[in-house]
Amino acid sequence: MKFIDKLLNISRKNQSWLCIGLDPDPELMPQVDVLQFNKTIIEATSDLVCAYKPNLAFYEALGTEGLAILEKTVKYVPGDIPVIGDAKRSDIGNTARAYARALFSVLGFDAATVNPYLGFDSIEPFIDYQDKGVFILCRTSNRGATDFQNLYTNGLPLYEAVARKAKEWNTYGNIGLVVGATYPEELKKVRSICPEMPLLIPGIGAQGGDLASAVGYGVDARGEKAIINVSRQILYASKEKDFSEAARTMAEKIRNQINDYRNKAR
Amino acid sequence: MKFIDKLLNISRKNQSWLCIGLDPDPELMPQVDVLQFNKTIIEATSDLVCAYKPNLAFYEALGTEGLAILEKTVKYVPGDIPVIGDAKRSDIGNTARAYARALFSVLGFDAATVNPYLGFDSIEPFIDYQDKGVFILCRTSNRGATDFQNLYTNGLPLYEAVARKAKEWNTYGNIGLVVGATYPEELKKVRSICPEMPLLIPGIGAQGGDLASAVGYGVDARGEKAIINVSRQILYASKEKDFSEAARTMAEKIRNQINDYRNKAR
Repeated sequence: MKFIDKLLNISRKNQSWLCIGLDPDPELMPQVDVLQFNKTIIEATSDLVCAYKPNLAFYEALGTEGLAILEKTVKYVPGDIPVIGDAKRSDIGNTARAYARALFSVLGFDAATVNPYLGFDSIEPFIDYQDKGVFILCRTSNRGATDFQNLYTNGLPLYEAVARKAKEWNTYGNIGLVVGATYPEELKKVRSICPEMPLLIPGIGAQGGDLASAVGYGVDARGEKAIINVSRQILYASKEKDFSEAARTMAEKIRNQINDYRNKAR
Repeated sequence: MKFIDKLLNISRKNQSWLCIGLDPDPELMPQVDVLQFNKTIIEATSDLVCAYKPNLAFYEALGTEGLAILEKTVKYVPGDIPVIGDAKRSDIGNTARAYARALFSVLGFDAATVNPYLGFDSIEPFIDYQDKGVFILCRTSNRGATDFQNLYTNGLPLYEAVARKAKEWNTYGNIGLVVGATYPEELKKVRSICPEMPLLIPGIGAQGGDLASAVGYGVDARGEKAIINVSRQILYASKEKDFSEAARTMAEKIRNQINDYRNKAR
């Protein structure tokens, strides 16, 4: 099944556009066993999400064991929920092919994030996996994003040039964009350039993005395809033994808020 | 010891600015055991290089075992030769910190490559490791590089804006730039913007870059700090049992050619 269909199916079933970022940070976690932590979070929230998104950095920081934990985590997610590998990879064609194989064939992600700086031939090996989703970084949620992404090129900020190129490259219909919630006007602009694409929207919660505008500007004409990612606010809702209930309560609250804003946006 | 001193020491000792890219590709390799292949190449060439550069993609594509092979490969390199982790990582500050830890503390690289698209706060966690080298992608060697890197921003192509920012960010003197050999004029321009920085120059050999101009335009005023990377042309000089001698012969030839061009450049 194509990534976009898997995403739409589960989002309608779970009535949710919430994606939980599975970013285990030993300093913030209520318990030591990372795999068990992930499993508990997945069990507590799998009827409330449209996707999970592990960021590879947190697993690589755990050493070689980390990759084994990541592999088991991906397998533990129920089969009807897409898992997005947040890898932000970028390399030349020959090497990008190896990264695509690692993310899609070895680790088994349904989608991955990639960095556009190297241009089309660095993205092509990913989109060649036509059933997989490929989210290109467009306007990221961090402060430093303005250093290059907002520079004007031929009258357009770079992130808009990226959005336009992404649209042009989308032969197989499996490209999406990453646009941070922390810059609502930019999100609105990107949605207007790419009215049909799924947008992966980080930056809510710990990073300070506003949920109402993220949803209002992020959804498509049907009120869908805005994947709102939340990580720390849910994972670490409690550092005590009740962490899984606290995570569920927080996830449900945000899922419902997203739906309220979706209704208002229509 | 700081990365730059380690690099200068070994390059003077080995009379070499050749870096060998340790990119094991099972389809091209003369034998199946990747770790043994790497060890054999390192043994055959360690007196001919200024650095080794494993690209993480090729190890990730091997599955969880791949990371263990990478870790052992890094440890196997003699202690006076720097190892550059070609990872091209990019993420927001919190996550970039986890990547920096993975590359510098867990895997033990002396330097790493990073992608600039997310701006300063995505680079800062890397340069905070002041003894490590941080090579920022500037003008890459692939065809798609022109899609964004050559767009004009405030009268400058984006890669020049990146070079200027890198210079501005270089508080600890541990930043370098990646500039492909396939675009000699761009390399010349970058060297003029950053006369003191080490430049990591891929694109020779399989990618078609010209060695004479890569060296001539890449070196600093003392004829140093141009790290010429070659991967496939050396690793796969022979697919037969004589692969290690063939690799050594090719490495020696290129090392000597680089020195000839360095002498001409002065």
